[in-house]
Amino acid sequence: MGATRYVSVIGASRASAELAAKAEELGALLAERGLIVICGGRGGVMEAVALGVKREGGVSIGILPEDDRRRAAPDLTYTVCSAIGHARNLSVVASGDAVIALGGAWGTLSEIGLARSLGRPVILLDTWRIEQPGGGELDGVRRASTPAEAVELLLTPLD
Amino acid sequence: MGATRYVSVIGASRASAELAAKAEELGALLAERGLIVICGGRGGVMEAVALGVKREGGVSIGILPEDDRRRAAPDLTYTVCSAIGHARNLSVVASGDAVIALGGAWGTLSEIGLARSLGRPVILLDTWRIEQPGGGELDGVRRASTPAEAVELLLTPLD
Amino acid sequence: MGATRYVSVIGASRASAELAAKAEELGALLAERGLIVICGGRGGVMEAVALGVKREGGVSIGILPEDDRRRAAPDLTYTVCSAIGHARNLSVVASGDAVIALGGAWGTLSEIGLARSLGRPVILLDTWRIEQPGGGELDGVRRASTPAEAVELLLTPLD
Amino acid sequence: MGATRYVSVIGASRASAELAAKAEELGALLAERGLIVICGGRGGVMEAVALGVKREGGVSIGILPEDDRRRAAPDLTYTVCSAIGHARNLSVVASGDAVIALGGAWGTLSEIGLARSLGRPVILLDTWRIEQPGGGELDGVRRASTPAEAVELLLTPLD
Repeated sequence: MGATRYVSVIGASRASAELAAKAEELGALLAERGLIVICGGRGGVMEAVALGVKREGGVSIGILPEDDRRRAAPDLTYTVCSAIGHARNLSVVASGDAVIALGGAWGTLSEIGLARSLGRPVILLDTWRIEQPGGGELDGVRRASTPAEAVELLLTPLD
Repeated sequence: MGATRYVSVIGASRASAELAAKAEELGALLAERGLIVICGGRGGVMEAVALGVKREGGVSIGILPEDDRRRAAPDLTYTVCSAIGHARNLSVVASGDAVIALGGAWGTLSEIGLARSLGRPVILLDTWRIEQPGGGELDGVRRASTPAEAVELLLTPLD
Repeated sequence: MGATRYVSVIGASRASAELAAKAEELGALLAERGLIVICGGRGGVMEAVALGVKREGGVSIGILPEDDRRRAAPDLTYTVCSAIGHARNLSVVASGDAVIALGGAWGTLSEIGLARSLGRPVILLDTWRIEQPGGGELDGVRRASTPAEAVELLLTPLD
Repeated sequence: MGATRYVSVIGASRASAELAAKAEELGALLAERGLIVICGGRGGVMEAVALGVKREGGVSIGILPEDDRRRAAPDLTYTVCSAIGHARNLSVVASGDAVIALGGAWGTLSEIGLARSLGRPVILLDTWRIEQPGGGELDGVRRASTPAEAVELLLTPLD
């Protein structure tokens, strides 16, 4: 991956307490390593990851779908107003040198697809199970079972 | 679905002969029913579906990622140059009253996610197998095993 | 311009009766010449140009900002739902081999700028007066005083 | 304007030495006031404004058109890869509570139009002269003759 500096964390705008705890842990682990965290800037996983980043004094940037900041997660360091609706999912994954998917609704699925369309390495954690037509291993995708393992994979070159 | 008039067909820009034959059949079946077919306007499934539509004298509209038409599939009736790159995947699914996924690479996966984010009914045909975290039935998604079955489902209200 | 086949007509979503009459005349003149008309798909100039196209049995395609067709101009032949808000201004001008600006509010100004950013020839008719810092002639821009003159310029190569 | 926190600076990707000096001064003045500067992230005015911000220890965020950072201006604090080409002009102006146009080519003109479409106050400095059809004063637009005056206007409510 070369020098990973930006990491996109994708996940649903609603999260159970358990999922939010994992997102917060993930944000904290990324911030500890000096990585800048990009997310979609709204609730659920995005809000929790921003909180984790803040806790460790790191930097998070939320890329919002709207043209205003009213619905931005409170703990983000910075926000960008894309004003392009769901198309901001593309900007979210494009802005990361690598992508971690945590939990997930339909938007997360779209982001996994867009990330791989752009060639970004993707790490799956408690998220969609996906299988290509015909089956076989998915190129550029790895699975983690904890936030710590996701961060470890992130810092391990694909080969 | 109310009156379905536009149907988006999503699929990879490379297709085996078998997949292309299914896409062409699907295009022809949709055109026979007077439905306007929207697609991403490039090769593979998109090209084959446009050919099927043309064969039956129907109308297809390709929404291209670029700002020019040089790489457009030859048999499209009309083309739109979105000039927004992969973000055109959103415009492709938004422009259909319903969406049929046939075959598929990463872009197709993103389109399934984006279609459902917008609430579009999606019919899966020889494409990605997807399972939400926690499993369970997917809302708004149905599976078909032939182009004819996909079109039949399309014209059957969800409930 | 090579073979001009698609022409984008840009203008405000509110139009006086006089402006709407010009837009309708412009649509009719473009349709008479077999040109496909692209517009933003909403009210005002866009609605009137679509009416003119329809009157002559031509084809118009409206590229809407929303993800649904509820606010589409009634006389459009086809509509595309971009779902990217004001960013659809880019898709509107990218989809024309040339662009005619008629009347205009802020969105029209943005479209003139985007059209020229993409290198599209632009014809100005009763629209914004613009002057670059430092003055001088504007590259790729011509002025017309009637719809008929705009169409004539359109079919005249720049040199 | 309420609390202005983010300011978008728009301008051409090529700048004369004189224009670059003004852009650098503008960046420094904005940073001194603790404002976060948003720009398009490339050369010319964007590069110079980022340098000015850096000089004063401020924060700038560049929103790039591409899906990678290879062509980003070197002195930006953070970068976002929109991956939507010229449509990123919309995200640039949407991300500012107010917008300052300095110098400018076609992209800048488009950004002035997009900023006003979103209701953002715009300050013009050595940039396009624009006049609406029918003439009259432009709503939401003010002119400055120096970077210092632009920043002063920025911090003065419209009424």
